[in-house]
Amino acid sequence: MARVFNFSAGPSMLPEDVLSKAAAEMLDYQGTGTSVMEMSHRSNAFIAIAKDAEALLRELMEIPDSYKVLFLQGGASTQFAMAPLNLMGRNGSKKADFVNTGMWSKKAISEAKKFGAVNVVASSEDKNFNYIPALTKEMFDPQAAYAHITTNNTIFGTRYRELPDTGSVPLVADMSSNILSERYDVAKFGLIYAGAQKNIGPAGVTVAIIREDLLGMELDITPTMLGYKIHADNESMYNTPPCYPLYVSKLVFEWLKKKGGVTAMQKINEEKAGMLYGFLDSSKIFKGTVEPKYRSLMNIPFVLPTEELNGSFIKQATAAGFINLKGHRSVGGMRASIYNAMPVEGVEKLVEFMKEFEGKNG
Amino acid sequence: MARVFNFSAGPSMLPEDVLSKAAAEMLDYQGTGTSVMEMSHRSNAFIAIAKDAEALLRELMEIPDSYKVLFLQGGASTQFAMAPLNLMGRNGSKKADFVNTGMWSKKAISEAKKFGAVNVVASSEDKNFNYIPALTKEMFDPQAAYAHITTNNTIFGTRYRELPDTGSVPLVADMSSNILSERYDVAKFGLIYAGAQKNIGPAGVTVAIIREDLLGMELDITPTMLGYKIHADNESMYNTPPCYPLYVSKLVFEWLKKKGGVTAMQKINEEKAGMLYGFLDSSKIFKGTVEPKYRSLMNIPFVLPTEELNGSFIKQATAAGFINLKGHRSVGGMRASIYNAMPVEGVEKLVEFMKEFEGKNG
Repeated sequence: MARVFNFSAGPSMLPEDVLSKAAAEMLDYQGTGTSVMEMSHRSNAFIAIAKDAEALLRELMEIPDSYKVLFLQGGASTQFAMAPLNLMGRNGSKKADFVNTGMWSKKAISEAKKFGAVNVVASSEDKNFNYIPALTKEMFDPQAAYAHITTNNTIFGTRYRELPDTGSVPLVADMSSNILSERYDVAKFGLIYAGAQKNIGPAGVTVAIIREDLLGMELDITPTMLGYKIHADNESMYNTPPCYPLYVSKLVFEWLKKKGGVTAMQKINEEKAGMLYGFLDSSKIFKGTVEPKYRSLMNIPFVLPTEELNGSFIKQATAAGFINLKGHRSVGGMRASIYNAMPVEGVEKLVEFMKEFEGKNG
Repeated sequence: MARVFNFSAGPSMLPEDVLSKAAAEMLDYQGTGTSVMEMSHRSNAFIAIAKDAEALLRELMEIPDSYKVLFLQGGASTQFAMAPLNLMGRNGSKKADFVNTGMWSKKAISEAKKFGAVNVVASSEDKNFNYIPALTKEMFDPQAAYAHITTNNTIFGTRYRELPDTGSVPLVADMSSNILSERYDVAKFGLIYAGAQKNIGPAGVTVAIIREDLLGMELDITPTMLGYKIHADNESMYNTPPCYPLYVSKLVFEWLKKKGGVTAMQKINEEKAGMLYGFLDSSKIFKGTVEPKYRSLMNIPFVLPTEELNGSFIKQATAAGFINLKGHRSVGGMRASIYNAMPVEGVEKLVEFMKEFEGKNG
């Protein structure tokens, strides 16, 4: 079958060039006579891959030298524990501030409660998370060990348009669903973490970017593998890393650099999202679910007037090669996840298809 | 370059058929129009892959129905914490017995001490771990929450020839470096865990096989992602699994089944190891480092009379396409790791090469 346009929320599309390169190098990586999957993680060939991955990510995100870049395992779900285990002990307060903007924030909150006191500064749950709460500096506790946000909410399709000012309290961000999709000033964060399976690479690798002065304050109960410092001290090679997912991530970083980096990608993402939001705003039957100001560039939920129409749209779209458009059960309807690897053409064609559907059903 | 014979201790060789299949399916898995890397882990296509992987592993290891099979992340290093966090609370004793047979046992011991009291029942450290200590039932504490062994010691090249009798105390085994290489009666264990990167598949997936009655007794401080029960309750899909490494593992399981399963593979492994040990025992200059009774089928350390000869052998072997033969620094000399995917031909040719080397240097 021809390649389809895959609107999955994650794992999600990867650039075709990346997949082709991975396939071509599968049995013999650059004349080594072995697959990357077969390489010792201590081999020169693999260490070069890991170093390149880090250097490329540093370049793409303009990560200051005072930050460590870690490639870990376990996804954001593991970070939900790792962040509090490593940071709750920062200043003896053992309390942290959280902003609740959706299911993933809630999971982070619930996990952090195991390891300290959690103060929910603000929540958008009153409107089924269709906006980002207004945040002022006064809302944050200056004694908190850290403050946590979710920069983009995959399920509800919202994103922060500006970062909260938390003063000297380190800002921790789950950036799983919009890392590398728009420019962020890394220096504004104490810790950024992200599962790979949206904009980085295949599931199985997790990125953590942590300011060096926040290393080494783990609680005593922290399992060795959940301490950031041991991974920082060992350049993410304390144990065997997820070598192949990391290699494919490196290929994605190379692809992104070739496309012009994050600045260029942000423009493309604004163009893609703009096309889809523009159509939703003009349509008589399709409707976006998010307050315009907080609309995500990555995840675009929308609904039709009836469940029957939702169902029939998803069915017809799937048959036409637009797959995984079914919305999350918490929102219903549809959701188009249009991460970096989704070509402009994919969104253009989806909008055309939606127009046709409206013509027949409007 | 032609494919080489890769004697790496892990990550290590994979069957060429598996790599070829993965490459062929990279851009379009069985007519889905997507790569396995791009599939939602909730999609029917991926769920079928995960279910097949589990069913195949159950068949290959004859795993009883009363055991859960989990596909996790973080490697054996994470299991070193996960096992005590989940099992120390089994009977209120918060103590566990360990047998120290090498570096990985020591790491498991050191991590378990964070979460309970550790009793080292026996150790082979007195002879640089070149044997497995004799173990009698009386040595084990009937009040222990569990007893832990390392069935095969990757670095030192030893393996248990028989399992200790721990009575009703659950036996926990790190089987990372010899799972699927020889028959084990799973019913004798409470928990088996293994990193994938030797006999299962690519690094990034970890297998845990746990008796159901041992689920749900986590200590309160256990991070959600480090509890076995949540993964068991969610069929290893509580969060996004390492999809691609799991898919390749499934291909390895299929390959192993086609080869005749574990019984047939054990025969081949005995043949391969027999060839190499036979030569070591007859050689005037090459010498195995392990007490014959406890020799591993997977990892075969050996030395030459001088450091100079060791160095020159490794250099010449590498040039001849026998790679990663350098021994671990704790043993020195050479180590040939000959996991399931190493063809008989690879060992035959290595032995020929060693004979030639002996001819020139003996």
